[in-house]
Amino acid sequence: MSLLIRSSYLSQSHIQPRNSKPSSHTNQTPLKLVFLSSFNHNPLVSLVNKRNPTMQPPTFPPSMTVKSSLIDPDGGELVELMVSESEIKLKKAESETMPKVKLTKIDLEWVHVISEGWASPLKGFMREDEYLQSLHFNSLRLKDGSLVNMSLPIVLAIDDDTKEQIGVSKNVALVSPQGDVIGSLRSVEIYKHNKEERIARTWGTTSPGLPYVEEHITPSGNWLIGGDLEIFQPIKYNDGLDHYRLSPKQLRKEFDNRQADAVFAFQLRNPVHNGHALLMNDTRKRLLEMGYKNPILLLHPLGGFTKADDVPLDVRMEQHSKVLEDGVLDPETTIVSIFPSPMHYAGPTEVQWHAKARINAGANFYIVGRDPAGMGHPTEKRDLYDPDHGKKVLSMAPGLEKLNILPFRVAAYDTVEKKMAFFDPSRTKEFLFISGTKMRTYARTGESPPDGFMCPSGWNVLVKYYESLQESDESSKQQQAVV
Amino acid sequence: MSLLIRSSYLSQSHIQPRNSKPSSHTNQTPLKLVFLSSFNHNPLVSLVNKRNPTMQPPTFPPSMTVKSSLIDPDGGELVELMVSESEIKLKKAESETMPKVKLTKIDLEWVHVISEGWASPLKGFMREDEYLQSLHFNSLRLKDGSLVNMSLPIVLAIDDDTKEQIGVSKNVALVSPQGDVIGSLRSVEIYKHNKEERIARTWGTTSPGLPYVEEHITPSGNWLIGGDLEIFQPIKYNDGLDHYRLSPKQLRKEFDNRQADAVFAFQLRNPVHNGHALLMNDTRKRLLEMGYKNPILLLHPLGGFTKADDVPLDVRMEQHSKVLEDGVLDPETTIVSIFPSPMHYAGPTEVQWHAKARINAGANFYIVGRDPAGMGHPTEKRDLYDPDHGKKVLSMAPGLEKLNILPFRVAAYDTVEKKMAFFDPSRTKEFLFISGTKMRTYARTGESPPDGFMCPSGWNVLVKYYESLQESDESSKQQQAVV
Repeated sequence: MSLLIRSSYLSQSHIQPRNSKPSSHTNQTPLKLVFLSSFNHNPLVSLVNKRNPTMQPPTFPPSMTVKSSLIDPDGGELVELMVSESEIKLKKAESETMPKVKLTKIDLEWVHVISEGWASPLKGFMREDEYLQSLHFNSLRLKDGSLVNMSLPIVLAIDDDTKEQIGVSKNVALVSPQGDVIGSLRSVEIYKHNKEERIARTWGTTSPGLPYVEEHITPSGNWLIGGDLEIFQPIKYNDGLDHYRLSPKQLRKEFDNRQADAVFAFQLRNPVHNGHALLMNDTRKRLLEMGYKNPILLLHPLGGFTKADDVPLDVRMEQHSKVLEDGVLDPETTIVSIFPSPMHYAGPTEVQWHAKARINAGANFYIVGRDPAGMGHPTEKRDLYDPDHGKKVLSMAPGLEKLNILPFRVAAYDTVEKKMAFFDPSRTKEFLFISGTKMRTYARTGESPPDGFMCPSGWNVLVKYYESLQESDESSKQQQAVV
Repeated sequence: MSLLIRSSYLSQSHIQPRNSKPSSHTNQTPLKLVFLSSFNHNPLVSLVNKRNPTMQPPTFPPSMTVKSSLIDPDGGELVELMVSESEIKLKKAESETMPKVKLTKIDLEWVHVISEGWASPLKGFMREDEYLQSLHFNSLRLKDGSLVNMSLPIVLAIDDDTKEQIGVSKNVALVSPQGDVIGSLRSVEIYKHNKEERIARTWGTTSPGLPYVEEHITPSGNWLIGGDLEIFQPIKYNDGLDHYRLSPKQLRKEFDNRQADAVFAFQLRNPVHNGHALLMNDTRKRLLEMGYKNPILLLHPLGGFTKADDVPLDVRMEQHSKVLEDGVLDPETTIVSIFPSPMHYAGPTEVQWHAKARINAGANFYIVGRDPAGMGHPTEKRDLYDPDHGKKVLSMAPGLEKLNILPFRVAAYDTVEKKMAFFDPSRTKEFLFISGTKMRTYARTGESPPDGFMCPSGWNVLVKYYESLQESDESSKQQQAVV
């Protein structure tokens, strides 16, 4: 999501009342449905649902008990793929006899994602029939005929040598980048990895310079191996941030503990500025006005692979802490947690994954902004994706019908009021749009952004990070000069 | 579809009994369901349906009346977009006042396709929400929440000047390549034509050398215009073949007239050899064994744009006539008609379009072969698509659940029996595979293919065509030499 929050200029034809049809698995939809009409009439936030316009929300007695597990995971049950305590010894011994597949850092991030059920009902790396459905239809058909969303191929590549070593073995052991056997893939299926087709259908371009492609796909093998995943223990990174890495099960429990009656998720991979905060606080206000008693914000920074010029996770987490310490966001109604997925920068295709994973984590509202998961075109001077396609595609995506999607309003710096505010088109000249690039330039050059752009303690975290970058740059230059 | 007919090596997990859930629009599914189990147990032809494995076919009394309209069009009603006789004068006068959009030859083929309802329920060139759903999900969601298949973006491109001329006009007139106003597009929406993204997501590659892209997309404008189509009269080509161009409505009527109780469609863009004929005749035999009394073959050559080295439509139609005259296919149980769509050569994405359009034409069985709508990679020495992906994707595609899909068995030239026969893996060395390229080489060099490859009168049509090509080549060389 871009730091620059732009207006949703979805035409009226795209914004319709969300008369959600309750999923057969979901027994608590009345909570969100009861208040839908007021949400819809509110001009600030609109709910998008073009899919079931003829469906009528069921009516329920107002005294109905609040249930805090707000939305069922895809497939009805949260996937968890940890081997049970009693079996670990046997399974570990067994895995020693299996052919080994070495994982990259990003592969391990996907093992993390799959094993905790973010990709439910997916139970392992995709076999070919799942891969093809994901690539062509952005969805998987379940045995009961229903569809779940699955827009990114979640696959494991192996090279020719590894394929040969596996031969006709049914199961393989998975080896972490550090050399530990961390689990296994069972009843495997090996099929061709047509990288060009995968890239073209996922990104809508095959231009050189796509970060995930260059880091992860180009160097990978010519085969994909799918199968059922089992891991021996939860994936940990030992980077001082593991306590932030709540699994979907833990998040659901936390929402229950807090007796949330609505959870709205905010995906981000950038520092939080006051425009973001305005938007999140405004969303909460609207949910309260709609009658929800305890809406909880899931502030959910992405923790896996990001491109080199993004702000690193540890710096972002420190910045997010300051934003909560300063009271810009309310710690009482906010849960900060890390989403372990790597970033694809695949725009409208990826935003579906970001939303779908949050269903599995228990969020029933999802905030979507301008150009979600987008970036500049790697070789042309333009955005890679139409900035509005993300929210349009999200609003039409198969399998996301049960999620309430909240498109952004624009926020920008109001130079008169000296604060981030919702953009007022009648005073265009008084607003300043501060892009991510501009913000990074401020921080890098030590220049202060306008007052009220970000809380000072949060801003200091960024300034220090960029100072440290320059120091290490200079020290490496000096070392080179000495050599 | 390749001339080379290869084995379906769909794994057993992909082949399951097709317990079709009757669509709410379809009132005659019992006919095909009654006999499914015998079809499924037949090792020669398997029905593919992974989507409703838990559904049980309804039971019906055996005396139930045969209804010959076998499958409902997508959306429940066949779209037809001809202006009524009484309105033509008014509409023509009105269209004279509208901004004009000039159509290319391929645009006109799409006008033909849309206006006759091959793309039902599509009522015109796609607006952006339809375009995005087609591009990302290969399907469109209808107002009742159901999905219909729509894998190819059916769009009309305009350039900057035309966009400017249209301005804020709501309606535009469509002008044929010959300069005639043939109809209009109403309540238009103009949106960006991101060619790179369209090509990447449709073909899974952006390599130079894709025939439809080079012919039609690259030279086209930077905007797409969607809207509701109306035309003044049926599209005709005056090439002596118009009587072969039956609309979906006419085909449905013809199937009714013949009291067909099953219609199996065979899409092709190549001459018919005896391997094709074996397959089609074998399919008919199987349908009879299943209990159908009058299965009709729709031999349905594609009539729109094809690449330069494909055999032209008029030559193919003459060849097909010979095949029927010679009795290789039975005229009594075969309908030969032209499918007016242009060819994309977009493999698994396009084969869905080919199948979906035949639902609208009233076919309830669809034969799919190796590498449907495939071709060689334009810049690499390999097939552009995995030859098995077409039938796999087809079997899983949203919106095609009501169609019975019949994957090919392999046919090749049996050098012992001296005829085209189903390939017998125990006698591999006795079979000769004759590719399309090889067949064209035979015809071009005047060399005869093995006896029994194609009926002699059909073969002569091809030989004469290639002789005429060489003559015109030589005459143009001589002209160049003279100049």
